[in-house]
Amino acid sequence: MLKELSPKAAELQKNLTEFMEEYIYPNESKVEQYLDEAEDRWTIPPLIEELKGKAKSQGLWNLFLPDTEHGAGLSNYEYAHLCEIMGRSLLAPEIFNCNAPDTGNMEVFVKYGTDEQKKRWLEPLLEGKIRSCFSMTEPDVASSDATNIQSSIVREGDEYVINAKKWWSSGAMDPRCEIAIVMGKTDPDAPKHQQQSMILVPFNTPGVEVKRYLPVFGYDHAPHGHAEVHYNNVRVPASNILLGEGRGFEIAQGRLGPGRIHHCMRAIGAAERALDLLCKRASEREAFGSTLAEKDVIREVIAESRIEIEQARLLTLHAAHKIDTEGAKAARKEIAMIKIAAPRVSLNVIDRAIQVFGGAGVSDDFPLAAHWANARTLRLVDGPDQVHLRDVGRLELREQLK
Amino acid sequence: MLKELSPKAAELQKNLTEFMEEYIYPNESKVEQYLDEAEDRWTIPPLIEELKGKAKSQGLWNLFLPDTEHGAGLSNYEYAHLCEIMGRSLLAPEIFNCNAPDTGNMEVFVKYGTDEQKKRWLEPLLEGKIRSCFSMTEPDVASSDATNIQSSIVREGDEYVINAKKWWSSGAMDPRCEIAIVMGKTDPDAPKHQQQSMILVPFNTPGVEVKRYLPVFGYDHAPHGHAEVHYNNVRVPASNILLGEGRGFEIAQGRLGPGRIHHCMRAIGAAERALDLLCKRASEREAFGSTLAEKDVIREVIAESRIEIEQARLLTLHAAHKIDTEGAKAARKEIAMIKIAAPRVSLNVIDRAIQVFGGAGVSDDFPLAAHWANARTLRLVDGPDQVHLRDVGRLELREQLK
Amino acid sequence: MLKELSPKAAELQKNLTEFMEEYIYPNESKVEQYLDEAEDRWTIPPLIEELKGKAKSQGLWNLFLPDTEHGAGLSNYEYAHLCEIMGRSLLAPEIFNCNAPDTGNMEVFVKYGTDEQKKRWLEPLLEGKIRSCFSMTEPDVASSDATNIQSSIVREGDEYVINAKKWWSSGAMDPRCEIAIVMGKTDPDAPKHQQQSMILVPFNTPGVEVKRYLPVFGYDHAPHGHAEVHYNNVRVPASNILLGEGRGFEIAQGRLGPGRIHHCMRAIGAAERALDLLCKRASEREAFGSTLAEKDVIREVIAESRIEIEQARLLTLHAAHKIDTEGAKAARKEIAMIKIAAPRVSLNVIDRAIQVFGGAGVSDDFPLAAHWANARTLRLVDGPDQVHLRDVGRLELREQLK
Amino acid sequence: MLKELSPKAAELQKNLTEFMEEYIYPNESKVEQYLDEAEDRWTIPPLIEELKGKAKSQGLWNLFLPDTEHGAGLSNYEYAHLCEIMGRSLLAPEIFNCNAPDTGNMEVFVKYGTDEQKKRWLEPLLEGKIRSCFSMTEPDVASSDATNIQSSIVREGDEYVINAKKWWSSGAMDPRCEIAIVMGKTDPDAPKHQQQSMILVPFNTPGVEVKRYLPVFGYDHAPHGHAEVHYNNVRVPASNILLGEGRGFEIAQGRLGPGRIHHCMRAIGAAERALDLLCKRASEREAFGSTLAEKDVIREVIAESRIEIEQARLLTLHAAHKIDTEGAKAARKEIAMIKIAAPRVSLNVIDRAIQVFGGAGVSDDFPLAAHWANARTLRLVDGPDQVHLRDVGRLELREQLK
Repeated sequence: MLKELSPKAAELQKNLTEFMEEYIYPNESKVEQYLDEAEDRWTIPPLIEELKGKAKSQGLWNLFLPDTEHGAGLSNYEYAHLCEIMGRSLLAPEIFNCNAPDTGNMEVFVKYGTDEQKKRWLEPLLEGKIRSCFSMTEPDVASSDATNIQSSIVREGDEYVINAKKWWSSGAMDPRCEIAIVMGKTDPDAPKHQQQSMILVPFNTPGVEVKRYLPVFGYDHAPHGHAEVHYNNVRVPASNILLGEGRGFEIAQGRLGPGRIHHCMRAIGAAERALDLLCKRASEREAFGSTLAEKDVIREVIAESRIEIEQARLLTLHAAHKIDTEGAKAARKEIAMIKIAAPRVSLNVIDRAIQVFGGAGVSDDFPLAAHWANARTLRLVDGPDQVHLRDVGRLELREQLK
Repeated sequence: MLKELSPKAAELQKNLTEFMEEYIYPNESKVEQYLDEAEDRWTIPPLIEELKGKAKSQGLWNLFLPDTEHGAGLSNYEYAHLCEIMGRSLLAPEIFNCNAPDTGNMEVFVKYGTDEQKKRWLEPLLEGKIRSCFSMTEPDVASSDATNIQSSIVREGDEYVINAKKWWSSGAMDPRCEIAIVMGKTDPDAPKHQQQSMILVPFNTPGVEVKRYLPVFGYDHAPHGHAEVHYNNVRVPASNILLGEGRGFEIAQGRLGPGRIHHCMRAIGAAERALDLLCKRASEREAFGSTLAEKDVIREVIAESRIEIEQARLLTLHAAHKIDTEGAKAARKEIAMIKIAAPRVSLNVIDRAIQVFGGAGVSDDFPLAAHWANARTLRLVDGPDQVHLRDVGRLELREQLK
Repeated sequence: MLKELSPKAAELQKNLTEFMEEYIYPNESKVEQYLDEAEDRWTIPPLIEELKGKAKSQGLWNLFLPDTEHGAGLSNYEYAHLCEIMGRSLLAPEIFNCNAPDTGNMEVFVKYGTDEQKKRWLEPLLEGKIRSCFSMTEPDVASSDATNIQSSIVREGDEYVINAKKWWSSGAMDPRCEIAIVMGKTDPDAPKHQQQSMILVPFNTPGVEVKRYLPVFGYDHAPHGHAEVHYNNVRVPASNILLGEGRGFEIAQGRLGPGRIHHCMRAIGAAERALDLLCKRASEREAFGSTLAEKDVIREVIAESRIEIEQARLLTLHAAHKIDTEGAKAARKEIAMIKIAAPRVSLNVIDRAIQVFGGAGVSDDFPLAAHWANARTLRLVDGPDQVHLRDVGRLELREQLK
Repeated sequence: MLKELSPKAAELQKNLTEFMEEYIYPNESKVEQYLDEAEDRWTIPPLIEELKGKAKSQGLWNLFLPDTEHGAGLSNYEYAHLCEIMGRSLLAPEIFNCNAPDTGNMEVFVKYGTDEQKKRWLEPLLEGKIRSCFSMTEPDVASSDATNIQSSIVREGDEYVINAKKWWSSGAMDPRCEIAIVMGKTDPDAPKHQQQSMILVPFNTPGVEVKRYLPVFGYDHAPHGHAEVHYNNVRVPASNILLGEGRGFEIAQGRLGPGRIHHCMRAIGAAERALDLLCKRASEREAFGSTLAEKDVIREVIAESRIEIEQARLLTLHAAHKIDTEGAKAARKEIAMIKIAAPRVSLNVIDRAIQVFGGAGVSDDFPLAAHWANARTLRLVDGPDQVHLRDVGRLELREQLK
């Protein structure tokens, strides 16, 4: 029933799977160990750069970019299949230079960057030499309603002066982070959806202050991490504004569609990994007279997991294909739907796996707890479930009543 | 992403939708009213025969049969799309001669019937002139484990003598029911899965006793109904055995795959109808200062419904396509998965609609309560959820651990 | 931990349990059979009157009335224990003259009736000689918001003229129904909560028109039933107004508290009956090599049921006790909470039992399907869940933020 | 309805609540900050000892011990009320010397310790001078089935030689940990439930090796932590055996009942804290035109939380009272029931609060994520849910079928 993958995508799928087996899974704990033993966890394990080199040399690089000049030129539907595979490991996305928020930022550069900006920022990002962050969410307001965002971006001569208190700027802890895209108000008196703009802020500009890292359920997500970043009277050239004043929402919308496909497919990949681990563990452990795998109560959790995963994957692929064929705007309902469905499924399946693993499941001996914590944030990232449910309801009503 | 429908199937889809609007929905309550006013509810409203005539003349007839000689020659994937539409109304399947258990029985005749049997039973079934029933489940044993079935079919000379106490023989209350397919043991000493056989029993054979009808949550499902049927020393020619002694399980398996696609797609159709009704009602009713449709709590139930329906439909179409391309055996896990997922979704969505309709929802002013009761039986028909979950778990483990 | 029952209540509990075993359970199917065979299902089986006589003679009569003059003088906490027992059978409440809406109506008469009204209506109700109905809900508006109610009650000289289109007037189909309490607007210009009044309408007054009965999931709930009743220019003496014009909401509030305890405890009783039946069935049926009771998946559903029932019962008893000690107003949050919790649990447990019973569960061979349908209406009666959840949320916020 | 608290318990309840407000909540982040800045997180912040001193001087000390000689002499029902309060903060239990596993270990010493053992270990534990751990679970087997435990305890002359590989020995990372209770097999050939024994192992005995700490969803739970501990040919005097050889299960059973009440009431306290935080946050944050607290979708999550909490608390108090009045054995089903119900509710409520807090909810700015991680382990500690559900099902069936 599914649209077939192109030979190119199918080949990448195969190679990626092999790379995961050979280079990613065996190195997950090594990277973690390096960081544990490092003086400072905000440092890049050489192993990461080494693995990136291998991936790049095998052509497993920038696969997310639909642009054929800079990236793999895959459709969302095709990349979704690859993204799922990467989602099986928290280590993987960076190795293939497909990690958020760099992916979304690179897309923004491709679409809206000047040639100079592309040269300065996009190229090193594409090469995996620097990293970037995206500063939108603010601690002082409910940022799920993006019109609440309070940061100010004020034009003064040839410059913009930025004052912003941001948090959950992912990647900002990374020592390689060199550029931020910052959202804030250029015109508080404009109509609600034209008040906000996006602007480029080189991370070494005076006034950029990385206050602290933010843990996620106890995880620091080193070495990239999530930071609270204050922008104190930061001055950048006027040309750093993206697309023009008042067009922040437009850019935000544009990056959302594909970004959600990525999040959701990675979440599904994490669920698959968890189910895989669950099945193996269940077949190895015995209690009360038989292996866990022989018990009907365990078979039920395996079955429920498989049923949920299959449905969430089909829905996500369907949304990806709709973006490809009808555009992100037409696929708005589908994109909102997967944003609800996929993280939920991922959390359910990982949680069941944790339950089968017992104490080992909540520890770091297996990637389950870390994956769970990661998936849990997906119910908040880009707006909490409630916002998306309301959107789906509204769009559905509109269609039903027309 | 989805495989496109053939022009023929797409045309049927369009025509079927129009037929539903024009002839089915407006007549639902008329059929019910006829039965309410009839002396005996086990009688056929002339309106039903009239609508069947219209459907037949428009080529909306026997669409379920993959066989091009007798039926529409559609794939499971194609018919699934049509079956969903029919499932929107409990009245519809019979009008298109696509009602269970006749569909499954006709398939059995096509596959295993002799020429004479086809002439005698298949032809009038295909013409919609007679109806049939399928007698497998027994009141005295847990029939979810089909090896429990106790009925006996004993060879005596040129005849078989059948003694069986069956129930949930759907269609057996129908005055037009002329033929039963009965499952029972021909050899209690054979290996477990070769003890059972299926045999044809003309319904007017001496000893066939329709004991009583069985209501479903208060509904009698007249005029076809579900019956307890006793077969008391019923004698039929030896040639009435289907496929041969001991092959009952083989036949049962064969009819399951497509039959489950049908059940599931109809359940999804019922869910769509419920969501449609829900949205309309929500936009018409006001409470506490706004229409229900303007309330976020109602939008959430609409959204959850849409999210669930889309996923269940994709999964079911996927299973249908797998049967088409790899066969029912290869699709075994997928078939078991939809058997769990689709009725659940249908029950959820219909229940939410009932909740929005209030008292009207549990009454017969709208088809919601009746559809709910129908969908509830799907969690039991062909084995309860627990049996299918166990199967999915087992098959998943087998794949994961190979 | 629980407050002990008084010896009187404990004695009633014991006697009631014995009465159920001896007279109620064995007669459930007999009553149903009588109705099935009757020419008209809206007729009173003599067995019902006979059982009522037995119950009355054993002092198991009017137990719901806290008033010691007319009733048993039990607290809500005490009666709750008895009400649970009655809830185990749909036949039981009437036998003990504890059936809704007569119970609520009798309470209204006790509190607000004139001596003459008490003599004319309360006395025969207390004796179980007549029945009554309560006409509040209307088909044309979302009655969950009671301010929507449109019926008019207009004073003309010494009379009120009533024009009302009501439905879900339970008991109105009963041939013994002689009196209705009707809610409607006496002053459409008054403040919102003072527009409505309640008035007594003898059922034989000209203009009272019982249009039709309303089924609940296919059940007619004969012989009492639920009706659509139209009041067409019905004239009654001005003295029939209850408590005074504009006090309809006040009376409605007053009857709600205890009434919800009754509904919820009966729902819990129904759940207990279902769990009881489930356990017995599971121990008698075999599938796939063992009895169902020996399977862990079945033990899990039994365990979940027990866990849910215990919690819902404790919460309901707690609410009842709070009404007793602090009054219905103080217990408002608790009353709303049980209205959510108890029907849910009841539906869950009965549904699980149906699943274990298979086909037998949805039929009328066991009381499961009928109990389920009844419990389903409880999520709508006196306002849908959504209304109560909103109330609980609001009250909780008020307490948390004070 | 609830049994009233004794004046003594009520007084403690009041004082404890005040102590929490004054000393616990304001110091949570200070303790965390101390550890963050410490060179080694496995160190005791002086603030902790200071707060312990305050608690002790106010008589808020060893409240868990039913024994009046050593502890507060409260019933399980009474202490449950206090334990809930302590559960509101992860910092609290230790401050009141009521932290697991010390509580369970102290109870074991009170019941089974010799005078000398009491003097040596119980007294300093009661004074809060040392800490202890409990080594039962093993990484290499499914320890949910305790008969799987493989460690060996072999008698050699006047000594026992212990070889054991244990993990999840909570408290073992604490620099003050001086004594372990270790479970292992003294007789592999005895009947299954008499093979295991418990023995005291001073933590400074040669061969005791603390291998590593085990994180819980990224949290290290410093300074006490959970450790993998290997016991390599550890020799202790024969008198260190508790109660006698083969009586390990008996002791394990004894400590379970009250321990589960504690776990569950703390989980409920954590839920109350979360709901409290949720309500405050919802009233402070605005999105899409109103505060979150004004939105019905938020009121629903508040309502669901309150409904769940009330029920779980009543059930847990009921179980506590049953232990008090009928003993832990008679309360076995109730104890298993709360082990299922309370952690679930706690996880639900905390998760909803996290969702309302958005990014702040998963970070350490609020105690939500840490409480969630802690509550998640409760579904595993002392056996996973599946084991308890099976027990409840089995016990229920036994009662229903007798």
